[in-house]
Amino acid sequence: MKSTHTHIKDNFWNEYSELVRQTVIPYQWEALNDRILDAEPSYSIRNFRIAAGLEKGDFGGWIFQDSDLYKWLEAVAYSLERHPDPELEQIADEAIALIGQAQHENGYLNTYFTIQEPGNEWTNLYEAHELYCAGHLFEAAVAYYKATGKRNLLNISCRFADLIASLFGTNPGQMKAYCGHPEVELALVKLYQVTGEERYLNLSLYFIDERGSKPSYFIEEWERRGRTTIWAQGAPNLEVYQSHLPVREQPVAVGHSVRAVYLYTAMADLARLTGDVKLREACERLWANTTGKQMYITGGIGATHLGEAFTFDHDLPNDTVYAETCASIGLIFWARRMLQLEAKSEYADVMERALYNNVLGSMAKDGKHFFYVNPLEVLPEASVKNPDKFHVKPVRQKWFGCSCCPPNVARLIGSLDEYIYDVSEDGRTAHVHLYIGSEVSFEAGGQKVVLSQKSELPWDGRVEFMVSLPEEANEASFTLALRVPNWFNSDRPTLKVNGESIHYSIEQGYAKVDCMWKDGDVVEWLLPIETKLIAANPLIRADAGKAAIQRGPFVYCVEEADNGKPLASLSLADEPTLTERMAADLLGGCVVVEGAGFVTDDSGWEPGLPYRTLSKQKKAVRFKAIPYYLWGNREPGEMSIWLRY
Amino acid sequence: MKSTHTHIKDNFWNEYSELVRQTVIPYQWEALNDRILDAEPSYSIRNFRIAAGLEKGDFGGWIFQDSDLYKWLEAVAYSLERHPDPELEQIADEAIALIGQAQHENGYLNTYFTIQEPGNEWTNLYEAHELYCAGHLFEAAVAYYKATGKRNLLNISCRFADLIASLFGTNPGQMKAYCGHPEVELALVKLYQVTGEERYLNLSLYFIDERGSKPSYFIEEWERRGRTTIWAQGAPNLEVYQSHLPVREQPVAVGHSVRAVYLYTAMADLARLTGDVKLREACERLWANTTGKQMYITGGIGATHLGEAFTFDHDLPNDTVYAETCASIGLIFWARRMLQLEAKSEYADVMERALYNNVLGSMAKDGKHFFYVNPLEVLPEASVKNPDKFHVKPVRQKWFGCSCCPPNVARLIGSLDEYIYDVSEDGRTAHVHLYIGSEVSFEAGGQKVVLSQKSELPWDGRVEFMVSLPEEANEASFTLALRVPNWFNSDRPTLKVNGESIHYSIEQGYAKVDCMWKDGDVVEWLLPIETKLIAANPLIRADAGKAAIQRGPFVYCVEEADNGKPLASLSLADEPTLTERMAADLLGGCVVVEGAGFVTDDSGWEPGLPYRTLSKQKKAVRFKAIPYYLWGNREPGEMSIWLRY
Repeated sequence: MKSTHTHIKDNFWNEYSELVRQTVIPYQWEALNDRILDAEPSYSIRNFRIAAGLEKGDFGGWIFQDSDLYKWLEAVAYSLERHPDPELEQIADEAIALIGQAQHENGYLNTYFTIQEPGNEWTNLYEAHELYCAGHLFEAAVAYYKATGKRNLLNISCRFADLIASLFGTNPGQMKAYCGHPEVELALVKLYQVTGEERYLNLSLYFIDERGSKPSYFIEEWERRGRTTIWAQGAPNLEVYQSHLPVREQPVAVGHSVRAVYLYTAMADLARLTGDVKLREACERLWANTTGKQMYITGGIGATHLGEAFTFDHDLPNDTVYAETCASIGLIFWARRMLQLEAKSEYADVMERALYNNVLGSMAKDGKHFFYVNPLEVLPEASVKNPDKFHVKPVRQKWFGCSCCPPNVARLIGSLDEYIYDVSEDGRTAHVHLYIGSEVSFEAGGQKVVLSQKSELPWDGRVEFMVSLPEEANEASFTLALRVPNWFNSDRPTLKVNGESIHYSIEQGYAKVDCMWKDGDVVEWLLPIETKLIAANPLIRADAGKAAIQRGPFVYCVEEADNGKPLASLSLADEPTLTERMAADLLGGCVVVEGAGFVTDDSGWEPGLPYRTLSKQKKAVRFKAIPYYLWGNREPGEMSIWLRY
Repeated sequence: MKSTHTHIKDNFWNEYSELVRQTVIPYQWEALNDRILDAEPSYSIRNFRIAAGLEKGDFGGWIFQDSDLYKWLEAVAYSLERHPDPELEQIADEAIALIGQAQHENGYLNTYFTIQEPGNEWTNLYEAHELYCAGHLFEAAVAYYKATGKRNLLNISCRFADLIASLFGTNPGQMKAYCGHPEVELALVKLYQVTGEERYLNLSLYFIDERGSKPSYFIEEWERRGRTTIWAQGAPNLEVYQSHLPVREQPVAVGHSVRAVYLYTAMADLARLTGDVKLREACERLWANTTGKQMYITGGIGATHLGEAFTFDHDLPNDTVYAETCASIGLIFWARRMLQLEAKSEYADVMERALYNNVLGSMAKDGKHFFYVNPLEVLPEASVKNPDKFHVKPVRQKWFGCSCCPPNVARLIGSLDEYIYDVSEDGRTAHVHLYIGSEVSFEAGGQKVVLSQKSELPWDGRVEFMVSLPEEANEASFTLALRVPNWFNSDRPTLKVNGESIHYSIEQGYAKVDCMWKDGDVVEWLLPIETKLIAANPLIRADAGKAAIQRGPFVYCVEEADNGKPLASLSLADEPTLTERMAADLLGGCVVVEGAGFVTDDSGWEPGLPYRTLSKQKKAVRFKAIPYYLWGNREPGEMSIWLRY
C-alpha cells in the first residue's frame, strides 16, 4: 500500500474521537491507577511498579492485566498522532519508562510472572497469556513510534520479540508452541511492517503454521503441569483456543470469539503478505461462516458466555447472548485485513455493521461506562434474578476487573481514519469503504491528490467528494471506487460528477468511476436512506416471526422508556407505516423511527393467572424505536431489537 | 380422614402401574446394584455393604445416594401393597436387613459419613443431606409397614428418628438446626401418622419453626467449617435453601425448586394437623406464587439449571428451562396436602397438570429411560453445542449419577390411588379430584359404600360413577363432590343421576350432589373434551405471541418427526381449524391434533445469508401435534410446545 494520510472531519465521529481524547483516555488512566471510586481496581500500573522493584506487593488483577496498559498506550498514540498533547505524551513516556524498568535483562516482560511466578515463565502457554500481552505491547510500540517517532517502546518490544523468536520455533531446543490467546501473530506483522525486519513476519507465520499441529502442545503442556490449569477444568479444550486443527484446515469459527477473530486477522495479514493461497482460502471460509451464520444483526459474535464463545451455525439467542465488545472490534480488525486482501464490499458492510451497532453501543455517551456483553434483548430483572443472564448487564459498568473492552474501544475509535480508504500501491484506485467525513491525501501516478469527503451519514445519505490537486492546471488519473452499502435500497445509487449523473460499473460491490480528475471536481454519491424491516434467516430460530428495524447503518431497538413494558407484548402492525424524524433533544440527537404496532390486550389477565384460552385481542399503539447504539442511556429498562410481526 | 381404600382400574394408568411393577422397579434394582450397562453406576447397594462391613471400598456417588435405595423401597412397598410378589418382597427384605446392618448402635444411619467421614456427622447440615436421607428412609419404612405389616424398617426408622429428636431442638446441648434439603419434615409427619407418636410430629414442627431463624445456623456452621463447602461457593445462599426467612414470612417461592416444594408439603401437613393459621396462610401465599407466576404450562417448576431453582415471577424460558421431574412430583405432593387442607379444585387442577405432562413425560414408554430436565422447546444441536443448554437432553437417559428422579416417578405412580379421592372424616363427603377409573370403599354414616369410577379420560370426557352398597335395601347419605376441571370448556358440565340431568351447586370448583344413595345408582359426569388454544399471561415474556394446544389434561407439542424443521418457522393460521383423531398405531395410541399453519417461505435464503429485507411470504401447511408426554420417543429432533400465531 502506498503511504496515504487520512484525517477525519465528521460531525458524528469527531464527537466520539473527542470523547476518547478528552474523557476516555484520561478516565482510563485513572482506572489503570486504581483511582476510580467504586470500580474494581485495575492494578495495572501497580503491577508494573512492583515488577520494576519500585513497590512491594502481590500481583493484582487478571493474569493478562499488563495488556490494559498497552492498549491504553496504543490509544494514546493514536490520539497524539492526530492531536498533539505534550502533557499526555509526558504521562505516556513515564509509563513507557516504567515498562522498561519492569523488563528483564534478556528482554522478558510480564509482570505476572515477574512478581508471582518467577521461574515459571513459558510453562503455561495455554492459559497464561504471555505472548498475548507481548502482542499488545508490540501494537502499542508501533503506534507510539508512528505517532511520536520515539523508539523507546519499540526497542523494548524488539528486545522482547527477539527473545521470543529465540525461544519458539522448530530448531533444536526451541518450543514448538504458540499462545492460547492469539494476538501476538497480528502484532508481529505490525512490528515487521514498521521495522522491516522479516524475522518478525516469520515468527508470526511460525505461530500460525504451528497452531493445531499434532501432538497438541497444549495437551503435552497440561500433562507436564501435572494436569493443572488456572481456569479450565480437565484437559485443554482445543476448539476453545482454535488449536484443534491446523488453521488452514479449520472449517468453521469455533471457540472463544475474541481469540478467533484475532487469529483470523493475523491469518489475513499473512495471506496477503505471503500470497499463501491455502491461508487465504481458510480466511474466506471462516469469514463466510462467521459473518454468514454466526453473527448477530448488530455485528456481535459469540453466542454464549460460557467460554465467551461461538456455539454453532445459526444459534444466535438474543437474551443469553454474549457478543463481547472486543469480539466485534476483532471482527472489524479482520474485516479491515480482508478488504486489503480483496476489496469486496461485504467486508466493509460487516465492518460498518459492527462499528455502528455493537461497538458504538458498548460505550455510554459519557465515555465512562461500558458494556462488555452487548445483548439484543434485555429484561433488567432477569439480569439480577436469573443466573443464566447474570452476565447481561442492563446498565453500562464503570470498569471491569477484566477490562479488555474499554481500551479496545478507545484504540479503535482513535484509529478510525485507517478504516475509511484503501489506495492501491500505484495510486490508481482509491476505494472508499466508509462514508465518514474526511480528507485523504495520496499520490496517483506521481500527482499529489487530496480527496475530501463530506458525508451526511449516518443520518442522511448524501455524500460528496471533492478532488483537490496542488496546482490547478494538473490532472490526476485514478479510479474512485465507492462502496454500495448493503443497506441501500436499490443496487445502483445515483452518482454525479460535477452535477451530471454518470453511468458506472459495479465490481465486487464498489461503484467504479475511472476519470482524469481535475482540481475541484465534485462527485455526488446519493444513498437516500430508507427505514427498513429486516428478517433473519429462518434457520436463526431465535428471530423467527420477528423483524428488526434498520435505517442506514443503524440497527434500531425499542426501549421501555418509550414503549412501556412488557416489550414482548409489542408487535408490528401488518403495515407498520414507519415514519422517521430527527429528535434533536433525545440522547444527543438521533433519528427516531415510529410505527404502527399492537400490544397484547392484558385485560382479564390478573398477574396470578398464568394460562387461559387464547384470545387474540390487542390494542393498536404507535411504537418508537431508537438506534441501538444509544440504548441504555436512560433509566434501566427493557430493550429489544427484534419485534414480532 | 377416614380410612378409605382405593384401587385403580384404568386402561391408561394400569399400563403405567404395570410398567412400574414389571419394568421400572426391577430395572432400578439393577441400577442400584450397578448392573446397567453404559449407565453411570449408582453405588447405592455397594455403599450400604461397605457401611455394613461386608465389603471394603470408598463411598461412591453423591452424598445423598442412600436416598435412591429408600425411594426404591418405597416404590416397592406400593407395588407389594397392590400386587403381592413374594420374590420382590424377599429382595426388599434383604435390602432392609442390609440397611439395618449399616445402622449404628445409637441409631445413626448414613453410609456417606459411616464410610467417608466418621466423626463428622451433623457438621454440615447445609449440604450433607443427612436429614434428607433420613426422611426418605422414614417414608419407605411407613410405606413398607403399611404394605406388608413388617416393622423392621419402621423400627430402624424410629431408632434413627429418636436419635435425631434427641440431637435437635431448643434444649441445652441440642442443635438449633435443620436440613439444607427439606424432606425429613414431611417424612416425620408420616412417621407420626403411622406410629401415633406425637414426638415425631413435634420434631417436624420444630424443624419448620426453626428454619430461617436468625442468626442463621447455616452461616454459623459455615464459619465453624472454616468457610468450606462441598459444592457452593462462598457463604451459604440462604434463599437457595429456603432459610432466608422464617417459613411463615416467606412471600414468594425461591431457591432450589425441589427443596421448596418438599418444604411446602410439610408445611401444609402441619398447618392441617396443628390448625396453625399463619402456616396455612404461608402455604396459600406460596401456592399462589408458585402456580400462578412460576409454573410452566406442563406443571414444571424451576426456570434455571443453575441451582436447579426458581428465578422470579413470570420468568419461564422454554429452552433454558429446568423443570426437574422431582420438582413436579414435589408439586403434586404439595397439591395433595393443599387439597386435604381445603378441597379447592385449583389444587387438583395443578396436580393433574403436573402429573399428565411434566411427570408422565419424564419417563420413556419403555420405563427404562428418564428425563431429569423437562424442556418445553428442544433443538438437539443446541444441547450438544451450546453450553447454556447442555443440561437439556433431547433423549431420555438411562440412569443418572444423581438419580433422584426415576425412583420418584416410580413411587408416585405406584401410589397414585392415594391422589384420586378424599372422603371426609365422617364419610359425608366424597371428593373426586382425578378422573381415573377406580374403586373406593369407605363408610358413610356407618354404611359401607363402594364407589366405582369408570373414566374415558384422558382421551374422552365421559365419566361414570356407580354406588354399591353391600345390601341392596340399604341407603347411604353422602355428598359426591366432582371436580370441574379447569380445562373444561364451560363452567357447568352435565351431571346425570340414573339417566336424568340434575341441577347442582358448585363450591370451590366441585360440583356437589347430596343424595340418599341406593345400591346401583349411576352418576354420569360429562366433560366433552375440546382441543383448545391456550395463551400465557402477557407477563410471561417467553410465550408472547404464542399459543399452546391443550386437550383435556394434556398439553400438546409439535415434533420434527411430524413437522420437519426448523420448528420455529411454523406458525398457526388465523383459523387453525384444529382436528383430532385417535392414532392407534402412534406411540402406543394417542389422540393426534392437526391444524392449519404456515411455515416461513425459505426460498432465496441461502444458509449463508443471515439478514435481508423482510418478506412475509409463507407456505400453508397442515401441522401435527402429539401429547407432550409422548415427545422424544422417536428419533431425536426438534420439539416445541408453544407455537407462534
